[in-house]
Amino acid sequence: MYTSLLQHIEKFISLEPSEIDVLESCLNLSKIKKKEHVLQEGQVCNTMYFISKGCMRQYIINSKGVEQTLQFGIENWWITDYLSYHNHTPSNFYIQAVESSEVIALEKPTLEAILIRIPKLERYFKIVAQKAFGAAQMRIKFLFTMSAEERYHHFSNLNPEFVQRVPQYMIASYLDFSAEFMSKIRAGKV
Amino acid sequence: MYTSLLQHIEKFISLEPSEIDVLESCLNLSKIKKKEHVLQEGQVCNTMYFISKGCMRQYIINSKGVEQTLQFGIENWWITDYLSYHNHTPSNFYIQAVESSEVIALEKPTLEAILIRIPKLERYFKIVAQKAFGAAQMRIKFLFTMSAEERYHHFSNLNPEFVQRVPQYMIASYLDFSAEFMSKIRAGKV
Repeated sequence: MYTSLLQHIEKFISLEPSEIDVLESCLNLSKIKKKEHVLQEGQVCNTMYFISKGCMRQYIINSKGVEQTLQFGIENWWITDYLSYHNHTPSNFYIQAVESSEVIALEKPTLEAILIRIPKLERYFKIVAQKAFGAAQMRIKFLFTMSAEERYHHFSNLNPEFVQRVPQYMIASYLDFSAEFMSKIRAGKV
Repeated sequence: MYTSLLQHIEKFISLEPSEIDVLESCLNLSKIKKKEHVLQEGQVCNTMYFISKGCMRQYIINSKGVEQTLQFGIENWWITDYLSYHNHTPSNFYIQAVESSEVIALEKPTLEAILIRIPKLERYFKIVAQKAFGAAQMRIKFLFTMSAEERYHHFSNLNPEFVQRVPQYMIASYLDFSAEFMSKIRAGKV
């Protein structure tokens, strides 16, 4: 039931059978309906979400009042607002299911209890956060160094299936160009 | 000698005196001259840098051939390229001293050896990475939701001393506007 998370953890650290038992006894799988929010701006984010099936996104409302996607998460990604989680401050972000999804939602007290019983998981979460931060730095680099067209082709080459799964306006906002420009690119008019 | 790092660690976890001894025996303080690079694009980043004095920055060369600062690090910040560090791939970034700086440079084999002897440091590095990632998400939000003028005032209100320490063109590129616009803002002409 939690195979995807266990496999993801074991890419980075090794777990004893007894540790797997502890973990499994603490986890719960939740179903999130398409378009359902697990975090709204202004709420304190007290939970980390591991996506075992489906797709989630983190977004903001930009200065024009338009939703702007900052991050997608698909299978085997963690999604949360780390600043709100650590500082216990209201979040600046929304987190929403793009597709009907299955997630393992770990609330802070549960996760902290798990970390006390299996301290080596600290290393796993460290690597997850360091890689996510590195990927975010690369995303900023792409925004600053590639044209809109280059960003689209780079993204769709890296994630060919994903481009089919997600509404175009979300990808357009993630890549920071308009939905109209996206239509032109896809129609080969750019 | 390593007081700033030890104090920073003890903000998040507690160290035994014997663990402090282990740590101190593994650390080295390096002086980095102003404008000196510790990482160039294309090199594999094998080191994490803790800034105990001074200021460093991570930057890219953008599509116009101009340096664009993605991140500053001052006292008590870690700076590295996590993706290159983890994947052992050539870096996409430059890391350079903005001021003459003193850093604790931890190479991967040294850091891994420390983490084996003091596993609880995994938690420290996890929190550091999660908070840095959270801050990077906020930075992207500001780029998308604030005008250039708002970004400048927000940044200078949060970091009044810092604005005096760092060349204006670096701050302008960090906030994603031109040095000319920066001069106008500072002259009160915007």
